[in-house]
Amino acid sequence: MNLVGLAQGVLAGERRSLAKAITLVESSRPEHREQADALLTELLPHTGRSLRLGLSGVPGVGKSSFIEALGMRLLARGHKVAVLAIDPSSAVSGGAILGDKTRMERLSMDERAFIRPSPSGGTLGGVADHTREALLLCEAAGFDIVIVETVGVGQSETAVASMTDCYLLLQLPNAGDDLQAIKRGVMELAHLVVVNKADIDAAAATRAQAQLTSSLRLMGMSHHDSEAWQPQALRCSSLSGEGLDEVWQAVRDFEAQQRRSGHFEARRRQQAERWMWERIEQGLRQRFARHPAVQAALPLLSSDVLAGRVAASTAARRLIQLLDTPA
Amino acid sequence: MNLVGLAQGVLAGERRSLAKAITLVESSRPEHREQADALLTELLPHTGRSLRLGLSGVPGVGKSSFIEALGMRLLARGHKVAVLAIDPSSAVSGGAILGDKTRMERLSMDERAFIRPSPSGGTLGGVADHTREALLLCEAAGFDIVIVETVGVGQSETAVASMTDCYLLLQLPNAGDDLQAIKRGVMELAHLVVVNKADIDAAAATRAQAQLTSSLRLMGMSHHDSEAWQPQALRCSSLSGEGLDEVWQAVRDFEAQQRRSGHFEARRRQQAERWMWERIEQGLRQRFARHPAVQAALPLLSSDVLAGRVAASTAARRLIQLLDTPA
Repeated sequence: MNLVGLAQGVLAGERRSLAKAITLVESSRPEHREQADALLTELLPHTGRSLRLGLSGVPGVGKSSFIEALGMRLLARGHKVAVLAIDPSSAVSGGAILGDKTRMERLSMDERAFIRPSPSGGTLGGVADHTREALLLCEAAGFDIVIVETVGVGQSETAVASMTDCYLLLQLPNAGDDLQAIKRGVMELAHLVVVNKADIDAAAATRAQAQLTSSLRLMGMSHHDSEAWQPQALRCSSLSGEGLDEVWQAVRDFEAQQRRSGHFEARRRQQAERWMWERIEQGLRQRFARHPAVQAALPLLSSDVLAGRVAASTAARRLIQLLDTPA
Repeated sequence: MNLVGLAQGVLAGERRSLAKAITLVESSRPEHREQADALLTELLPHTGRSLRLGLSGVPGVGKSSFIEALGMRLLARGHKVAVLAIDPSSAVSGGAILGDKTRMERLSMDERAFIRPSPSGGTLGGVADHTREALLLCEAAGFDIVIVETVGVGQSETAVASMTDCYLLLQLPNAGDDLQAIKRGVMELAHLVVVNKADIDAAAATRAQAQLTSSLRLMGMSHHDSEAWQPQALRCSSLSGEGLDEVWQAVRDFEAQQRRSGHFEARRRQQAERWMWERIEQGLRQRFARHPAVQAALPLLSSDVLAGRVAASTAARRLIQLLDTPA
């Protein structure tokens, strides 16, 4: 593969080169991995200049129409918008989110936008890893807004939050009783909570917004950092466009406040460091699981631990010692 | 060291042998570790027959007086009670919790009780690990109730929950407004929430109990398992003894329900399995950090990642590859 040409194509903002580069970083073949590392290292100086926006919400909340409506407005303002996805079910289903580009018909046809479905296969960690790398490639290709979306279930939200600057949670207007059911952990990730589909029931949307505002305020009371962002609740309609400008203004306000306080850069550095250590731990686990002596001993030792014949700590120490056995 | 004699001493329920055995498993010297593993494996068939009770609460909630009052009642009913502690600050301070046995004067002087302060030094993971092993030794010594306490701050609560059958959270009666501040995560660990010091303000204790009951009910709504335990809120006074019998009855009800449903055994198996994998990951990290080639390369690669010169995933792969470098 002509890596130099590929890097130049990405830097020139060619969508085909970008798509090809992402396919390369998604590949699990060892020789591709080497090339992907070389490409990433080459392009890294040209990354980091986008605003990375995380987005989640339960199925049916209207993520695609929200991205389509917001994305078209951003293009009109002169931005270049990339949309990536993390699908926690992709390991099983082969990727459902964004798989159907017709869900964002106008955006997907525009030259200034780039839409990429969730990588499929592998663990959630692997999927998230590929999306992080794809995000860097999109930045190198000149996209100055990168949206990473996920469905509001499971750990994929944490993964999205760990690679974005601003996290936006979409809610339904009639979620009143469901508010209790929102996992507090997800609320704590959100910088902005937006009641979508306000057109369906304006009164319900207003109530939901008020309820969310007070929940966010209560949760914010535990922050001890006076420079911390106070999460906000907003409302909009992707259909009518109502409120979308306000949502975008809130994102920009958040960004400005975070840059002033130094939190923006600090968060990115933290994310990079944590990412490195996650990948190291994943690599260590893989090496462990592939070691022949470990593979030979693990089943019996595991069942000994479960049956209470060997203490878990003893079993762990024995297995670790096996790593020093010549393969 | 005479391991056979030590094992016999523990099995005979000698408190001096038990104390010595715990000191052995707490030692970080490699030859002690070998002996500790041998001792644990020898004693393991005699473990598992206690009820393991986790206990936490903020400083000042009255953990010591609660344990003293409950513990004396349990001795009167013919039980043998061991009390262990996990002090998240012990890595720094050298162990504060239970360090002062005079806080449980009557219990500590009784032959049928055994009180051991938190192991000091090392990480929280190391402290928790030693406590898990000490718990097994207490069981081998015939203690049929083992209480593991911790202060209600940080991750030590998760550690206690991960080694006990029943988790009891102590609360103050005037905690009304603070209820919002209780980390939801800790509430979710609790099977029983007990308002202690009800003697100080009976009305406040009643209000706190009612509030906790409704909070627990709301949280319980997200459980989909019809056989799941519905957490309960109770009240007591360690000073007057009021409510202590009811608390103990609730612990026993919980145990009976969990045994009937099979959750009791399932939880223990899960705990053993998770413990093994935690220890494996910890061992892998230690091996990684001690590798000379890794030690040589890590500082520069880390700073490259933080400065955005090398992608985190690339740095991680390079470091993992270094493990195959001959030391």
